[in-house]
Amino acid sequence: MEYSFKNIITRKKEGKELAKPEIKWMVDAFLSGEVTDYQMAAFLASVYFKGMTPRETADLTGICFESGKTYDLSSIKGWKADKHSTGGVGDKISFIFSPLVASYGIKVAKLSGRALGSTGGTIDKLESIPGWKAELSEKEFIDVVEKTGLSIIGASANIAPADKKIYALRDAVEMVDSIPLIAASVMSKKLVIDADSIVLDVKVGSGAFMKDVPTAIALSKAMVEIGKAYNRKVVALITDMDKPLGRTIGNAIEIKEAWETLNGGGSHDVIEVSATAVAITLVKAGLFKTLDEAKASVMNKLKTGEAAHYLSDMIIAQGGDWSVMNNYDKNFSTKHHIEIKAEQDGYLKFVDAQQLGFLAIELGAGRKSKEDHMDHAAGIYLNKISDEKVKKGDVVMTLLTNKTPETNWDKMARTTFILVDKPFAEKTIKEIIE
Amino acid sequence: MEYSFKNIITRKKEGKELAKPEIKWMVDAFLSGEVTDYQMAAFLASVYFKGMTPRETADLTGICFESGKTYDLSSIKGWKADKHSTGGVGDKISFIFSPLVASYGIKVAKLSGRALGSTGGTIDKLESIPGWKAELSEKEFIDVVEKTGLSIIGASANIAPADKKIYALRDAVEMVDSIPLIAASVMSKKLVIDADSIVLDVKVGSGAFMKDVPTAIALSKAMVEIGKAYNRKVVALITDMDKPLGRTIGNAIEIKEAWETLNGGGSHDVIEVSATAVAITLVKAGLFKTLDEAKASVMNKLKTGEAAHYLSDMIIAQGGDWSVMNNYDKNFSTKHHIEIKAEQDGYLKFVDAQQLGFLAIELGAGRKSKEDHMDHAAGIYLNKISDEKVKKGDVVMTLLTNKTPETNWDKMARTTFILVDKPFAEKTIKEIIE
Repeated sequence: MEYSFKNIITRKKEGKELAKPEIKWMVDAFLSGEVTDYQMAAFLASVYFKGMTPRETADLTGICFESGKTYDLSSIKGWKADKHSTGGVGDKISFIFSPLVASYGIKVAKLSGRALGSTGGTIDKLESIPGWKAELSEKEFIDVVEKTGLSIIGASANIAPADKKIYALRDAVEMVDSIPLIAASVMSKKLVIDADSIVLDVKVGSGAFMKDVPTAIALSKAMVEIGKAYNRKVVALITDMDKPLGRTIGNAIEIKEAWETLNGGGSHDVIEVSATAVAITLVKAGLFKTLDEAKASVMNKLKTGEAAHYLSDMIIAQGGDWSVMNNYDKNFSTKHHIEIKAEQDGYLKFVDAQQLGFLAIELGAGRKSKEDHMDHAAGIYLNKISDEKVKKGDVVMTLLTNKTPETNWDKMARTTFILVDKPFAEKTIKEIIE
Repeated sequence: MEYSFKNIITRKKEGKELAKPEIKWMVDAFLSGEVTDYQMAAFLASVYFKGMTPRETADLTGICFESGKTYDLSSIKGWKADKHSTGGVGDKISFIFSPLVASYGIKVAKLSGRALGSTGGTIDKLESIPGWKAELSEKEFIDVVEKTGLSIIGASANIAPADKKIYALRDAVEMVDSIPLIAASVMSKKLVIDADSIVLDVKVGSGAFMKDVPTAIALSKAMVEIGKAYNRKVVALITDMDKPLGRTIGNAIEIKEAWETLNGGGSHDVIEVSATAVAITLVKAGLFKTLDEAKASVMNKLKTGEAAHYLSDMIIAQGGDWSVMNNYDKNFSTKHHIEIKAEQDGYLKFVDAQQLGFLAIELGAGRKSKEDHMDHAAGIYLNKISDEKVKKGDVVMTLLTNKTPETNWDKMARTTFILVDKPFAEKTIKEIIE
């Protein structure tokens, strides 16, 4: 059968469903240059307006992840679990999820990324620990998983290159906000590892890419469907990102918060998301019958702190000097502690989590360009969290920085929250989609 | 006000109406390279799916025709009329329309093009007359109009360059078939000449770009609206292009048919379209009150032949040796006359006019590539025309060529018509839109 750009885009324009070989021809021809950037831009715009069926979306996902490196975990026995967040401010769930899951004998072999926009990156945070290596060979990666129950590494530059090239073009032509294209892009990067279950944490709100719940539900459903097509158990949590997650935004400080949570501390929102994600995984793996039973077990592990060492074991196995965490204040001190105090009484309500992410970058906790130095000690400590009672004069948050303080930081911080009359008790987990 | 690709395409994606400065910024930035080919491709695809309002379409038209050379006819006194065909097989209406209009004292200053696809080109046909020049300076052009009442020249390479660049991209990304984009493209090339009235001959059928009447009506309405925005009287005729127009397809042979029509001969379809287009022009110019009165006057001029010399005068004024037409058979003879005979009785019905156009090119009457030699004598003579009674053994058409005859020509010719039981009396003019 002969394929052509003309024939394929004409069928898409008419709203016809494309066959997998047609989609594959298009992607391959784009990678080889036979289909030009401008032709692919017109095709992606046609997909934007006419959509893709679940079958087309799953096919595109497969074509993208098969275009580059995939990881073979078949030598690892037993259930393998993965977890992915669409990116939020203060999101340290992976550092709690992975040790907890590993403590049940389920293996976690996870690829992660670096900071993007206003959201931090799992790899950047782990690099707060001196010596910790994000780049492992596939064999080293599997060895760490076998030895410690989990491993987190930086994704190879060569995973899903077709997705990378398509995404770059979508970004350049403002065709990012298409549910099937987002779903295929996210899942093509997850499916390069053959995990048995994947919990997706789909963030929604001011600090997330998805701004509203109906869109997040549609995206979640599309990703769950893709999972089914490739025989993976995919469950999506839709979680609130109008507020930052937990009490910290930064790098080392988020590792510290995760460690405290694994040892019986932590804020209720971080605990809720972590415990639910782990409990879903345990049920999918067949270790518990109901989510409630699984969750009760997880809550107990958090209280006893018995899963915590799985985190330090992994970090040490990947070359990290975990001892720095034993004297955190000395090793991660900053020159300046800027306290943002409440100017009235009320209940704390965050209104611009994204801005908090950008403020953390200003303080040195992120990069504005690839070349920027990242200060692992910099960040924001939230003395108060969402819905907490605040009195006039209370410290709401503390900005931690080694930079010369700038006058607009106080104002920037104050645009991120308001104080309201009554508690509002917003749920952190809005929906569970499977 | 600051404009950006991101802002403009986002608004178009949401179906918002763009302001003229936004459209102008987009076109200018595309011409300068600030907006890339792939960004413009995504924008054009968004326009394809979300459409353009009549105001946006008119603005795009203006931006395109103002991007290049325009012709100033203000020195020519009185009403100036133009006429444009969207392109059909055997379309020689301009050679009849222009002299007739000129014979009423209305001036015709017309830019025309060369052959495109299966349809012949007005300029190619006029070049059958040795010495006739398509390239005149603007002053020479106006001088010929003043002297003979009409002039037809090849459009400058520099008319509507923005449209040319946009069209080339639309063609490359399969985004040609958008009513507002087609309307803006056609009208941007017509409005470079400041005619008072324009009759658009919108062809519909197997031999035309527009395949169905509803689409042709929508296109016609869009073009009439653009005319209004620029204070031009635009009327569109929607005419049948399931059949070729008249009895001839070629170059010199079409000039000959036009000459015969101007001298009291011609087929009813050519007469109907020509007389209607002229009559509409006369009413718009205020010379007649009703179309019927105007048409009666035109029919009389055709019978007496009094308008014919306007055609030869123009051709001579542009350097043409009209004497060749006095001994047509000697000057435009071809080596081969291939007769296609009917294999049964019936009424002639054309089913693939486009294929007839391609057959004429095969015979030498057109170019397959820019470098090809064009044989002005080659073409097709239709011994029978649409709806005419044919008996088994009658010659339906004669292929005129200097090439070595190919065995598939007979078969190719036969795929273009069928013989049906009853006459069907299809109207040549399907709609008049104004």
